[in-house]
Amino acid sequence: MELQTLDTAKELDTTLQHLSRPLLPKVLQVQQGIVRATHDFMFRKGLTQLMPLMLSPITDPLNHGVVDATIGYAEQRWSLTKSMIFHKQLALLNPGLSSIYIISPNVRLEFADRAGTGRHLFEFTQIDFEFKGKDRFFVMEFMEELVNFVFARLNKEIPELLLELRGELLPQFEKWPVFRTEKLEAALGPDYEHIKSEEMTTPFWLLNHKREFYDKEDPAKQGTYLNYDLIWPEGFGEGLSGGEREHEYHQIRKRMADVGTNEEAFSHYLTVAKEGGLPKTAGAGFGVERMTRFICRLKDVDEVTAFSRKPFTSAIF
Amino acid sequence: MELQTLDTAKELDTTLQHLSRPLLPKVLQVQQGIVRATHDFMFRKGLTQLMPLMLSPITDPLNHGVVDATIGYAEQRWSLTKSMIFHKQLALLNPGLSSIYIISPNVRLEFADRAGTGRHLFEFTQIDFEFKGKDRFFVMEFMEELVNFVFARLNKEIPELLLELRGELLPQFEKWPVFRTEKLEAALGPDYEHIKSEEMTTPFWLLNHKREFYDKEDPAKQGTYLNYDLIWPEGFGEGLSGGEREHEYHQIRKRMADVGTNEEAFSHYLTVAKEGGLPKTAGAGFGVERMTRFICRLKDVDEVTAFSRKPFTSAIF
Repeated sequence: MELQTLDTAKELDTTLQHLSRPLLPKVLQVQQGIVRATHDFMFRKGLTQLMPLMLSPITDPLNHGVVDATIGYAEQRWSLTKSMIFHKQLALLNPGLSSIYIISPNVRLEFADRAGTGRHLFEFTQIDFEFKGKDRFFVMEFMEELVNFVFARLNKEIPELLLELRGELLPQFEKWPVFRTEKLEAALGPDYEHIKSEEMTTPFWLLNHKREFYDKEDPAKQGTYLNYDLIWPEGFGEGLSGGEREHEYHQIRKRMADVGTNEEAFSHYLTVAKEGGLPKTAGAGFGVERMTRFICRLKDVDEVTAFSRKPFTSAIF
Repeated sequence: MELQTLDTAKELDTTLQHLSRPLLPKVLQVQQGIVRATHDFMFRKGLTQLMPLMLSPITDPLNHGVVDATIGYAEQRWSLTKSMIFHKQLALLNPGLSSIYIISPNVRLEFADRAGTGRHLFEFTQIDFEFKGKDRFFVMEFMEELVNFVFARLNKEIPELLLELRGELLPQFEKWPVFRTEKLEAALGPDYEHIKSEEMTTPFWLLNHKREFYDKEDPAKQGTYLNYDLIWPEGFGEGLSGGEREHEYHQIRKRMADVGTNEEAFSHYLTVAKEGGLPKTAGAGFGVERMTRFICRLKDVDEVTAFSRKPFTSAIF
């Protein structure tokens, strides 16, 4: 075995320091509370849990570039799943499933420009849920209720920890304010999401994002979209994104052409849509580490990790 | 877009049939019950949850060959994690963490010889836990208690489902029987694990497996090991494996040499061990889909999946 260079000795030191922070066990307990409370909420609401898949021939194309992560196995290519979006839609084909959720790692190999945002990790945990036959209003209300449920549970289970980390107990929110991207942008300029997040003291909804083909275009107003993001206040930024989904063959192909998605990669998915198989659904996914960060008022989402996973940054463990 | 060939049309059909089975939602509810009850048990016992990592420069070498799964990112190679074994050991370096658990997908790209075992998936969910300063007796008792807790909870929450799927409610077990590999092998021949699993009606422990370097060798009897597998009865086979862990530098290197592990790949891990950093731990990991299979008495573990993941078998979603 070679002698360690000074550089790797330093990297090991940094890794062990990150791992050994006195804050870490406390932050992890908050995160664990979020996960347990979410499981209970989902069960009460009748959602069925699916296990995550990390490999699939198709995955979320995302609306921003990331490094391709594929491997070869059993004579085909498999992508590391960037979200469970298509599997959620497809699973709801089962007549016995009307609503599902999945707690899954998401691998998104971001480029270096996201290394220092404080909001990105190149792998993180997402809680994804999807309802058959429901619309955006239903999903938004569901999420508002989920947040109040989780926060009330944490206040009850770990009040001292919250006082220590956050300085106060968690609030209960009434109906969240709703804004639209195009109006905020007109008022605040291109950095509207961040500015509004800084300004607000309650979570809010931001509607109408032009992004991946699977988020439904508003049939009443083409070029606008029936999707929604939860934005955490106090500058913590985006914490959930969701939408009503495209499920009709011709509309999916139109949207794929609009955003430049390669149809070939989705040929089987398109076949299901063509044969009328894709159910009408709406759903969302929220980041566990980001919710933990918001609750604990941490500067960087990487403070939630035991093993640092900052975008485009090497690691030794 | 090309016309579908007959073969792919058939594959799509098979995939949708697998997904649409009337049995699936019921099996998923059992699995969900296992996960929720496990979270509650862990919380009561004071374990802290860590989120899974799917990518790491080091991962479990496993004691059987699988297809290599690595990707390039941020100027280094990352392996898809085959288990969280090293991260469990390292996380316990944090003075504030005395016991942890992780619910994580495990990717193990098995070869074709495991396609038809009924017990293997090339990705599955493992519940991993590890205790600082504890021994095998503690972990075995912990697992026995966990199984009774989960089974009692399922009996209470979903009795009708259990009656339908399993034909009866779940039992509560007294102390599980304990066997040793070398004695069973002498009595039953090379297929001893399967034969004994078929013969038994309660879960049992099987001690002393020669395998990965990280399972502790018995200092009192070299060439035997302080590890343990849970074997489900009625022929369902292995459902958990665990062990006390090697944590001393020279002993780890001896064991690596014994089983042919490449030291280079573990240079940082060895440095931590050399500097006395690796804590004395013991733990285990159990497969969620295998426990679900046992409870539901399913022929094949793949019946637990929404999207089939049989070893060395292609998929379209």
